[in-house]
Amino acid sequence: MPRTVDAEQRRRELGEAVWRVIRRDGVPGASVRNVAREAGTSMGSLRHWFTTQDDLLRFAMTLVAERARARVVAVLAASDTVDDRGLRALEEVLPLDEERRAETEVWLALTARALVDPRLAALRDASAEDLLALCALVLREPGALRAGLDPGLEAERLYAVLDGLAVHALTRPAALPADRARQVLAAHLEALRDTR
Amino acid sequence: MPRTVDAEQRRRELGEAVWRVIRRDGVPGASVRNVAREAGTSMGSLRHWFTTQDDLLRFAMTLVAERARARVVAVLAASDTVDDRGLRALEEVLPLDEERRAETEVWLALTARALVDPRLAALRDASAEDLLALCALVLREPGALRAGLDPGLEAERLYAVLDGLAVHALTRPAALPADRARQVLAAHLEALRDTR
Repeated sequence: MPRTVDAEQRRRELGEAVWRVIRRDGVPGASVRNVAREAGTSMGSLRHWFTTQDDLLRFAMTLVAERARARVVAVLAASDTVDDRGLRALEEVLPLDEERRAETEVWLALTARALVDPRLAALRDASAEDLLALCALVLREPGALRAGLDPGLEAERLYAVLDGLAVHALTRPAALPADRARQVLAAHLEALRDTR
Repeated sequence: MPRTVDAEQRRRELGEAVWRVIRRDGVPGASVRNVAREAGTSMGSLRHWFTTQDDLLRFAMTLVAERARARVVAVLAASDTVDDRGLRALEEVLPLDEERRAETEVWLALTARALVDPRLAALRDASAEDLLALCALVLREPGALRAGLDPGLEAERLYAVLDGLAVHALTRPAALPADRARQVLAAHLEALRDTR
């Protein structure tokens, strides 16, 4: 199917239907049949996008990564003069509003599923490499990393903070509401800065 | 069933059979029937422990938390003179060997399942409270936390590092082998210390 505006719109709507089914029924309930019912369409009309449950789950995982990546790129491109754009870029992958909460929930469900699904694991791993690279990029902003700190180790540590906060803000929203998650991430970046 | 040594041994063996099935077949494959087959026993003989898949998954989650907690308590009790016992206690919940890797894999699978299973979510939340309390405890060791740092925020940040490393060491073992995960955690604790 050509990537026209309509096709992109349709792809996004289907992705959201998949996410709703995963969030409501879990990964085992996300069959092509249930997604067709959720999207109000026939199974045949879904065959441009996916024909098996495995395809469907990869489609859902790809959309999570694409949408998060698009927001991160938009933040990074918006200005090169804003001090906290690193923080704002990283916040795009935390579940701080309903859209990102949906993505994080699907990401967590599919990350677990990938433990027993090697093709899904390949997508998960590519997305992890992207996020580690984003962490490294944020730490290369002017003044972001104090002299004496190891950039590779600090990128891994920042990535751990980011995914740990993602899991906790998702599963412990009362203990870690959006403002608190943001505050912990900001404190981490602040602790790394060159404050001379 | 009385908690005799034999009963404890049997409980542990069954838990490990449940874990093997979850790790091999995923949560949907972890039926009472499949666990009975894996454990080489009848479904009837399992009824002391669990009768439904939901029970079985709670049994598996409880065992993960119990075993990790027992190791943490043993490390903390071993000595009050060892400088790095906080680090060593936290390492007990990272997937740094095959036993802890099995636990972390089951924990991740059940954490995702808990998104659509409120009773499992209650167990997950209790375990999260335990781990946050462990992080807070580690930061109350003498000299562990520099003056001026906020203990509550630092406990949340340390817990994020810990769970982020757990997910990454599990899903990205080539990028984050045991030594590297240990090194990142140690660097985090070192950065918080009062080094006067």
